[in-house]
Amino acid sequence: MGLYADDQIARELQSLKDWVKYGKEIKKTYQLKDFIHAMGFVNSIALLAEKANHHPDIDIRWNRVTLTLSTHSAGGLTEKDFNLAREIENL
Amino acid sequence: MGLYADDQIARELQSLKDWVKYGKEIKKTYQLKDFIHAMGFVNSIALLAEKANHHPDIDIRWNRVTLTLSTHSAGGLTEKDFNLAREIENL
Repeated sequence: MGLYADDQIARELQSLKDWVKYGKEIKKTYQLKDFIHAMGFVNSIALLAEKANHHPDIDIRWNRVTLTLSTHSAGGLTEKDFNLAREIENL
Repeated sequence: MGLYADDQIARELQSLKDWVKYGKEIKKTYQLKDFIHAMGFVNSIALLAEKANHHPDIDIRWNRVTLTLSTHSAGGLTEKDFNLAREIENL
């Protein structure tokens, strides 16, 4: 799984609204209506993540869900991260 | 909802294995078998939290789940935090 170069990452992020690069990770915070909706969203993400065998860090703060993606085995950002981010955006 | 004093907090923590006080919060990291088990645990916590109308911060790192409890409306630790921590321990 090849590491993405900075220009590839910048190109990918153009089509991923509000996803931001921090070092070797990309992050986004989603704001839901309330905790119940946040948990529904988290469970949808969990199913996608398990299917892809690629698991974001998930931080839940009542109605806010922050996701952090990185391919730890590769030491940075790869296709796996952007594919999963796109699937999550499509939920 | 009364804020707990330091000695009350210390007493409560004696019966809550591996829960640790950090400032105005208590925290514990649970290690599950894998992500599937972590999500099962998180969903059980979510049901208890919604029922109690008291929601921990929940951080998921594959098989590890870190919970942080505080009563923000009271500016510190109250009965609500220790009651929910005990319910989670009993899962």
